[in-house]
Amino acid sequence: MRTLVPFDALTPKSRLEPVLSADEREGFARRMLEDVLAAVGGAGGDPLVVATAPVECDAPTVVDDRPLSVAVNDRLDAGTAVVMADLALATPRTLRAFFAASGDVVIAPGLGGGTNALVVRDASFRTDYYGTSYLDHLRIAHERGLSVREVDAARLAVDVDEPRDLADVLLRGEGESAAWLRERGVRLRDSNGRGRATRSRTE
Amino acid sequence: MRTLVPFDALTPKSRLEPVLSADEREGFARRMLEDVLAAVGGAGGDPLVVATAPVECDAPTVVDDRPLSVAVNDRLDAGTAVVMADLALATPRTLRAFFAASGDVVIAPGLGGGTNALVVRDASFRTDYYGTSYLDHLRIAHERGLSVREVDAARLAVDVDEPRDLADVLLRGEGESAAWLRERGVRLRDSNGRGRATRSRTE
Repeated sequence: MRTLVPFDALTPKSRLEPVLSADEREGFARRMLEDVLAAVGGAGGDPLVVATAPVECDAPTVVDDRPLSVAVNDRLDAGTAVVMADLALATPRTLRAFFAASGDVVIAPGLGGGTNALVVRDASFRTDYYGTSYLDHLRIAHERGLSVREVDAARLAVDVDEPRDLADVLLRGEGESAAWLRERGVRLRDSNGRGRATRSRTE
Repeated sequence: MRTLVPFDALTPKSRLEPVLSADEREGFARRMLEDVLAAVGGAGGDPLVVATAPVECDAPTVVDDRPLSVAVNDRLDAGTAVVMADLALATPRTLRAFFAASGDVVIAPGLGGGTNALVVRDASFRTDYYGTSYLDHLRIAHERGLSVREVDAARLAVDVDEPRDLADVLLRGEGESAAWLRERGVRLRDSNGRGRATRSRTE
């Protein structure tokens, strides 16, 4: 399946600033992108990176600096998937099941109400990624009489935005992102029963 | 399936203090417990609440104030499930699929590395809920030569511990917990692309 992978190549992952420097955030975002591209490819998807600026990666890339929803909608034919570039827990297996789910629109909601992955099989659907897009996408599909299938997967629900999310990458990530974090001294520490990612800068 | 539901009846949900008063935290924890019991029952499970102090609820209850792992292990026969009382997103459908998964041990990891739900089909398994128990449980199963099946479901991965988690209850909760939050003025607000639960005390 043709799969758009939007990527912020300019100031990626700014909310990870407490743990990673600007250069590191860029490097980490690139590792996550590569992990996602590998998962999409492994699931039989055909990725196209839609980046806000030129980026070198292991897939065809197009640069489009318009707002995310515009850049996606412009390329949204029936039978297109959209998978976010920061799903560091995504695996080929999870995405294969996601792509195979039936429905005019298939949604994997993210924690906090984003839309982490989407399959659009009816070209009348339009994305609106601003705000809690999960609710907006349910509404848009409903307004157009489209069937919706929601896929509930933690590996697709965790988009890595905040330091707290790094713990899940360390715990369950199977790709380069987790290895990259470990190499830079980001470690799992137990805090009040929930694992946290911490870092010793002197390490 | 016989399903233990451990419940902290003394100081539940202390990390929700920024949003809810002590009385409210107790009330909210009780609503989540009832939602979980309804989901377990709807999935064909036979719940037993293992509480740290007496609690009135819609299921048989036993009081056991020993540490969680001890209280659970003492009741762990082959064919026992353990489901945490704060899985406010759990539905009968999700738990039915979870109970039906094969494996000597079936695990639904929580965000941050807890063990949110567990099926134990081999009585040699022992729980250890201290710390990032997901990794410990994988290790314990491995040491005893037991097969492990990991079930990846966001509805089982979100245990409601922190204010951030309330957004997901408001977004996707289908039970009393979400309604209870709304009645008390806890609302979803968009913050930097991720939904947050906020509350106006004057509401």
